[in-house]
Amino acid sequence: MNSIEEADEFVRNGYKTYMPHFSIECVIFGYENRQLKVLICKWIGEMGWGLPSGYVKREEALTDSAIRILKERTSLDNVFLKQFHFFGDSIYRRAPYIMEAARVLPEGNWLTERTVSFGFYALLDCSKAIINQDYFFEEYKWVDVEEIPDDLLLDHNEIINTALITLRNQIFNEPIGFELLPEKFTLPEIQTLYETILNKKFDRRNFPNKLLSQEIIVKLDEKRNIGQHRSPFLYKFHKVNYQNALNESVVITI
Amino acid sequence: MNSIEEADEFVRNGYKTYMPHFSIECVIFGYENRQLKVLICKWIGEMGWGLPSGYVKREEALTDSAIRILKERTSLDNVFLKQFHFFGDSIYRRAPYIMEAARVLPEGNWLTERTVSFGFYALLDCSKAIINQDYFFEEYKWVDVEEIPDDLLLDHNEIINTALITLRNQIFNEPIGFELLPEKFTLPEIQTLYETILNKKFDRRNFPNKLLSQEIIVKLDEKRNIGQHRSPFLYKFHKVNYQNALNESVVITI
Repeated sequence: MNSIEEADEFVRNGYKTYMPHFSIECVIFGYENRQLKVLICKWIGEMGWGLPSGYVKREEALTDSAIRILKERTSLDNVFLKQFHFFGDSIYRRAPYIMEAARVLPEGNWLTERTVSFGFYALLDCSKAIINQDYFFEEYKWVDVEEIPDDLLLDHNEIINTALITLRNQIFNEPIGFELLPEKFTLPEIQTLYETILNKKFDRRNFPNKLLSQEIIVKLDEKRNIGQHRSPFLYKFHKVNYQNALNESVVITI
Repeated sequence: MNSIEEADEFVRNGYKTYMPHFSIECVIFGYENRQLKVLICKWIGEMGWGLPSGYVKREEALTDSAIRILKERTSLDNVFLKQFHFFGDSIYRRAPYIMEAARVLPEGNWLTERTVSFGFYALLDCSKAIINQDYFFEEYKWVDVEEIPDDLLLDHNEIINTALITLRNQIFNEPIGFELLPEKFTLPEIQTLYETILNKKFDRRNFPNKLLSQEIIVKLDEKRNIGQHRSPFLYKFHKVNYQNALNESVVITI
């Protein structure tokens, strides 16, 4: 959406294109400077910060819808995206726009209908991510998962918390490490990522030894120069072994 | 629902009570004779076998709806019930009843609307479960998860497969063992349960030793008599230690 005219048309006639009852909320995780981050957006009109979201089109599959909404709101494309939970037990109006428009919405406008939200999480290397703004958003921010404001719109805090628990529970089943890390990474980078997601500390030697002995990661003949006398070796995932470990739910931290 | 009159009223005027767009499908797991089983139901009118399901009421929270539908269809109450996935990317008509009634449904009947299904899984000790039949069902059956017919209604095979993968991924995070086993169980019973869900074989000594050394299960001063010279000791979960292990995602099989 690019203008106020389009937004007004959406409020008036959006029901012809969209299902009033189905919305998508995207929790976009990135990893940078050894911090796990989430993308939050400032919605127009003093509404506050929340997640990128949108309505499902009438003839659109839910997963296609999530891909489209992620792209429309943030321009992100071709990223790992997976459903994780549905929300809306007690929240009947979700569209943030409605909060501004509610006073002038005629009774029975489609935006006042009960809606269930389908939660999807996205994973990406945020050092490479380029975000372009949608009409709905004034500002974007990557925030450390430890520092998420506790007053996000609607139930977006609950949605992020549930997504974090999902990452924790799926870290040995889904390619979460692979999708969040850059292709080449240092040992402290991968260790901090697993520690952050699992909310535990691992031994500095045991953790990489475990990954290396199972050949889930491999050492490269390449170093990163990060300062005087500091040039740690780089590593990358061994794709086949990593995928096998995920298929077998191998726990690589113990 | 108890009669054809009620069912007809449901088809004609159900939209006043129910959301046409939200349905619930229940995958009910039980464990008996060292077999993990799923409850399937034969729907009326030659429709075939499928899962217990139903529509969400307009003013009803999704989890309340799942509890109600489980109870209405099967009389099961007070069981462990948890959302795991949503379905309906490409299936727009779900109500099995519609398959029979479709020819006589007027254009625009609410049962022809697009519906998304919310999948919930239930866990219970099926030796204790009493199932009472709903009007919609002619017959019930507990089937071993290895022997599920591959021609269930709609996408119910896909739903069961996804539920099984969920059990596998959550076995160290959710009280799956506790909910499926009777209060007192033998070592082969618990071992077979974990082997079935994880689709792996564990060592006959290591597996119980691991559980016992971490005090996740405790040995009782009680035996079960299962035949001449065969009276294995019974065990039960140590609730606090088990819950702590789940909270910490402790993998108890290695």
